[in-house]
Amino acid sequence: MKAHQIILKSRPEGMPTSDNFDLTPVKLPSLQDNEVLVKNLWMSVDPYMRGRMIDRKSYIAPFQIGEALEGGAIGEIIESKNSALPVGTKVSHMLGWRSHFVSSAEGLTALPVTPIDDSHFLGVMGMPGMTAWVGLNRIAKLKEGETLFVSAASGAVGSIVCQLGKMMGAKVVGSVGSDEKAETLTALGVDAVINYKTCGDLNQALADAAPEGIDVYFENVGGEHLFAALNNMKDYGRIAVCGMIAQYNDTTPTPGPSNLAQIIMKKLRVEGFIVFDHWAHYGDFAKEMSQYLAAGKIKAEQTVFEGLEKAPEAFIGLFEGKNKGKMVVKLS
Amino acid sequence: MKAHQIILKSRPEGMPTSDNFDLTPVKLPSLQDNEVLVKNLWMSVDPYMRGRMIDRKSYIAPFQIGEALEGGAIGEIIESKNSALPVGTKVSHMLGWRSHFVSSAEGLTALPVTPIDDSHFLGVMGMPGMTAWVGLNRIAKLKEGETLFVSAASGAVGSIVCQLGKMMGAKVVGSVGSDEKAETLTALGVDAVINYKTCGDLNQALADAAPEGIDVYFENVGGEHLFAALNNMKDYGRIAVCGMIAQYNDTTPTPGPSNLAQIIMKKLRVEGFIVFDHWAHYGDFAKEMSQYLAAGKIKAEQTVFEGLEKAPEAFIGLFEGKNKGKMVVKLS
Repeated sequence: MKAHQIILKSRPEGMPTSDNFDLTPVKLPSLQDNEVLVKNLWMSVDPYMRGRMIDRKSYIAPFQIGEALEGGAIGEIIESKNSALPVGTKVSHMLGWRSHFVSSAEGLTALPVTPIDDSHFLGVMGMPGMTAWVGLNRIAKLKEGETLFVSAASGAVGSIVCQLGKMMGAKVVGSVGSDEKAETLTALGVDAVINYKTCGDLNQALADAAPEGIDVYFENVGGEHLFAALNNMKDYGRIAVCGMIAQYNDTTPTPGPSNLAQIIMKKLRVEGFIVFDHWAHYGDFAKEMSQYLAAGKIKAEQTVFEGLEKAPEAFIGLFEGKNKGKMVVKLS
Repeated sequence: MKAHQIILKSRPEGMPTSDNFDLTPVKLPSLQDNEVLVKNLWMSVDPYMRGRMIDRKSYIAPFQIGEALEGGAIGEIIESKNSALPVGTKVSHMLGWRSHFVSSAEGLTALPVTPIDDSHFLGVMGMPGMTAWVGLNRIAKLKEGETLFVSAASGAVGSIVCQLGKMMGAKVVGSVGSDEKAETLTALGVDAVINYKTCGDLNQALADAAPEGIDVYFENVGGEHLFAALNNMKDYGRIAVCGMIAQYNDTTPTPGPSNLAQIIMKKLRVEGFIVFDHWAHYGDFAKEMSQYLAAGKIKAEQTVFEGLEKAPEAFIGLFEGKNKGKMVVKLS
């Protein structure tokens, strides 16, 4: 059996390129008692991984040069010396970016037996779906009848935010970077969609889409989007700050918006969050979300790249807007 | 009797100048039933008034050209046709910037009978003191043992924030713009004081003053101060956004700090507030603060300008750092 992994060859400066990554063979040890051999079936690429490529203190340790990258993945046990995880068990874990690995079983979570596709446990039923749910329910506390603005609205998190927002009784305005994505969102029932690349003045486009003002902004982007949102927020609005993807590849510091005083004038609450802090609520989320999926109330779109060697391209594609819904890599 | 008022002659562009104001005589009507004639004794100048000089929608209506300015003031009833407000009653109200006025008594609040100087009802016992108390207790929820950073720390609000912070059991770091102000703060028991004009890299100065990190930032300034605070916040820190005085006179938009992504990485809560929203809690505040004053636990410094005609100079001085503690104008 040939096992491979993708290592961080060099730290990206600005936009990552394929030169920052290397596909290398890896020799796996033979199994000890209680260990299992996992073959990965799907792996996730997510914008937050860009932050781990920078050598700095953060909420999660940076990746190291020459070592395999990590990230959410779904695998199957193909050899087992652990009776709790027999061959054939599917597991979710954080050791993506590799074809196989040997594990003491720590950090492996058996997938529940459901009709839901395995890969969705990297998306709508996994970290991005939970992020959407936490941001709306636990951070912004969106209420029925409110107006919700979502940036990167067709992404893995944003597309779920939009759909949950509709289900919670909000008017939803989404911002995307192409007309094709806009059409997809409209088909999902989003009330108004802005193509920020073609709308001209984003601030005005948002005012036109939500003349009543915005109660909740689900922030995935930063920069011009944050500026426009601040200008269009209602008094006592809440901004759930999930990501600022527009800045992740900055090589020089990009100034923030000039209208932060809106936070005072409108008495806004701006709150950052990391989904991992809320993982104790995963059960509540999963129960709710699996019911929505079963009832067809949430559509979980995916963009799939095939083959471990395509993982860097898929990752880079996140910053080029190449994904609709969750970007995943299908391992052969 | 000669009555005067100060009107807004023109809207300031950038830093206000004396040309933006005009002292004009005013003819007062004779009293109708239930009306009183108020002679103002003290008036307040506050940074927020700069915002009202701009013609825009905000939480409070803009001042109009040619009309008298408004703001907190303390007056005395010198003629009365209202039995509830006999001659000699002292009242607080929002009709500053004038020597006298006739009132239906609406908007007048009789001062309580206390040994506290009247003018303190514009400062430590009034809007600025209440702002400090609300920001710490109701917005940031400062806890014992935490580290508090305060910008404009020797100002009307900041100096009370520092002292309340010490009483709540926090380590307090203050930022000021002169060595004299720094000495005053040190004498008040503040643990570390930064003179932002001479400290070099504010970010580093703050890291040195609070190597353990900041739990609560009381934001009065914006700009570089916000940048430094974001970089030095602890995880789950709170920023109570009270003011951004560094920007009030900007004629072109000043970009925000480049490190807003710290809000995500550190899971910060950034919350703007306006003290008027919390006025229902004035009783709790006043009870607590009057006890502190009586016990000599809070020192309420003032900078006093004398004469109504000096009000514009006092107001402009707020943006030049001319005040220590509360800036007030004593009317003859």
